Amino acid sequence: MRCEVVAVGTELLLGQVVDTNSAWIGDRLALAGIDCHFQTKVGDNHARIVSAIRIALDRSDAVLVCGGLGPTSDDITREAIAEVLGVALVRDPAMVERIAQIFESRKRDMAPSNERQADRVEGATFIPQVRGTAPGLICPVGDKVVYAVPGVPFEMEEMLDRAVIPDLKRRSGVTAVILSRMLRTWGTAESTLGELVAGRVEALEARSNPTIAFLASGIEGLKVRITAKAATEAEATAMLDAEEAELRAILGELVFGIDDQSMERVVADLLLERGLTLGVAESLTGGLVASRLAETAGASKWFRGSIVCYDSKVKFDLLDVPEGPVVSAEAAEAMARGACKALEADVGISVTGVAGPTTQEDQPVGTVFMAVALGGVFTSAESHLPGDRQHVRMFSTISVLDMLRRRLLKWKG
Amino acid sequence: MRCEVVAVGTELLLGQVVDTNSAWIGDRLALAGIDCHFQTKVGDNHARIVSAIRIALDRSDAVLVCGGLGPTSDDITREAIAEVLGVALVRDPAMVERIAQIFESRKRDMAPSNERQADRVEGATFIPQVRGTAPGLICPVGDKVVYAVPGVPFEMEEMLDRAVIPDLKRRSGVTAVILSRMLRTWGTAESTLGELVAGRVEALEARSNPTIAFLASGIEGLKVRITAKAATEAEATAMLDAEEAELRAILGELVFGIDDQSMERVVADLLLERGLTLGVAESLTGGLVASRLAETAGASKWFRGSIVCYDSKVKFDLLDVPEGPVVSAEAAEAMARGACKALEADVGISVTGVAGPTTQEDQPVGTVFMAVALGGVFTSAESHLPGDRQHVRMFSTISVLDMLRRRLLKWKG
Repeated sequence: MRCEVVAVGTELLLGQVVDTNSAWIGDRLALAGIDCHFQTKVGDNHARIVSAIRIALDRSDAVLVCGGLGPTSDDITREAIAEVLGVALVRDPAMVERIAQIFESRKRDMAPSNERQADRVEGATFIPQVRGTAPGLICPVGDKVVYAVPGVPFEMEEMLDRAVIPDLKRRSGVTAVILSRMLRTWGTAESTLGELVAGRVEALEARSNPTIAFLASGIEGLKVRITAKAATEAEATAMLDAEEAELRAILGELVFGIDDQSMERVVADLLLERGLTLGVAESLTGGLVASRLAETAGASKWFRGSIVCYDSKVKFDLLDVPEGPVVSAEAAEAMARGACKALEADVGISVTGVAGPTTQEDQPVGTVFMAVALGGVFTSAESHLPGDRQHVRMFSTISVLDMLRRRLLKWKG
Repeated sequence: MRCEVVAVGTELLLGQVVDTNSAWIGDRLALAGIDCHFQTKVGDNHARIVSAIRIALDRSDAVLVCGGLGPTSDDITREAIAEVLGVALVRDPAMVERIAQIFESRKRDMAPSNERQADRVEGATFIPQVRGTAPGLICPVGDKVVYAVPGVPFEMEEMLDRAVIPDLKRRSGVTAVILSRMLRTWGTAESTLGELVAGRVEALEARSNPTIAFLASGIEGLKVRITAKAATEAEATAMLDAEEAELRAILGELVFGIDDQSMERVVADLLLERGLTLGVAESLTGGLVASRLAETAGASKWFRGSIVCYDSKVKFDLLDVPEGPVVSAEAAEAMARGACKALEADVGISVTGVAGPTTQEDQPVGTVFMAVALGGVFTSAESHLPGDRQHVRMFSTISVLDMLRRRLLKWKG
């Protein structure tokens, strides 16, 4: 079963909007076991949309057209599909009524042009709208099919998961369940991670199920994705569990979370479990550590605050750092201790270093000192991070959070 | 002149990497006056790359193939282009030598597979590599042309601007110069901005040169782009200058910068010009204000630091905020004053409010108080921002920076 994506919108071609929908859809199709060999972007032009859909329908079993379902005159996906199929558009009175109700419930006036969203390609069925005003379409063409979904990601994603993927799976006759799980790691290079996991990759290669894939995600860490295919969800989950256990046995503390668990979420949960509050002292990261922590819901239960001591004098005055070099392990430890004291926190973490563009205190760009103060015990580390100013700051941020995570895992209270 | 983009890479179809290159290229083509009607993504598969290039070449004058020039066995763009053109690949000894030199200068070993990057499609010319190891290709096909550039954005962008766009312009015979300038605004809704500028849009419509376009960029503000086409660069620049003056007369202080001037860059320059240092006190933004300021190069000249007082007690203890409600104009003013004092800064700015998900002190989510303290004078404001937690925090950040900008513009010292 092959399904192509045709993303419609002149703004996509002009680069005013990056087409993230196709990538999202590609990921979902792969997880459903459906091949996607081509993805096309085309502008709001009738002849060219028709041509793009025809080419796609010719070489694939299904075409997913994304965008161009709005109410304005340049939203012409419905018309283009009707032309490809050689059928008419029919305005659906019940759908007109439904759209009017949506406007009414939102206390907004409905422009007459919104009635166009109730046009149905003859022979097609609507995918009822849940989040927006435009319904989607499922348009059978012989033993093939054309789908239309809105271009607004929030609307498209819901419709794809609810209606399109299940319909595609039914048509493909694939009854297998495909599940995946992401192990998120921090603290090692991609090549080292590859070597560590090489034995598992080899062991799985023979039966090719489950499979393992790597994904480098910058400061979100290195991800190891396990994908399992089985007859039932329970069976696929069991396969994921087994492989996760194998990988965790090898990777140990390198694994900080799974799926959408961010480093800050993991740290937040550890602090909550242990009933500890946190204070931060940061210089080169300039507030990034604090802002990532404050992003987690419920942060007010454990996050006291941060002293962004960009100027050295702020370190001396507010954090009691002894006058002297501030790019040093001693300064980092004093900052962590100072954060505990000034912010009345149980745990203090700190980062100081050289983000660039120039050296500082004769230390090269990328030199970073970090410390964790907890229960009178200090853990500190020196790192030499690659990249430009922005990279150094981002890598420092996740590195100090990872250092805190490892310290909290060992902490017995 | 029509040029299509074919982006090569299975990772793009699987959604592991979002294809931002095509959008970037689309923007550059539009600015060069070259139409781009289709953009295609295709995986690392010989037959399918060949097919995608053939379809593109059939309906356009030029095809830009992006990606698949690496050294590994799945990098097969060179082979695919050779097949489309019906010619051979020839390994270029001088290019092999050049690539070896690049490796040597980086003190890295060159794998034998890297020699593949020296393969030239017969009849094509190399685009010399400046940033990476892979050269690009310009492959004439009758009166049409196929270009190949690397998929690494950093390498692709340089090569496109240096070699591909000039070559396309030469072929298209377009001698006109197209220039654009972006006016960046903050402080008004998109519809209001549209109404303000409607007169100019109408005035320009008749001659359609220069043109005006709007672009909403979230917390980067609303952008108004002027595009002018003229025989010479001087003439195009004069048209941009004239239209910029017209728009500035209407928009006044809503315009905070042009092109890639971020709000923090503008604020940084104003502080530097006036010889003032800055301190921040922030609660709901959790360090975002500080981190944006610290991103600007040379921040150490004027940025003292920030006190991220997430917990109310930190406000009372470190910033001398009087005990009582902290979501209030009084608290914001006390915080700004406290930031000046604690951080020994000339100017203090502050943000306090309710980011959500729940109300605080009976104030609804999105209620934000901001203040600027400068020379004993306070400016404060109350905002009611839309959106979720993350939106409220980001909009608060740029709003307080904009408030500081307007205050600094009026400041006479």
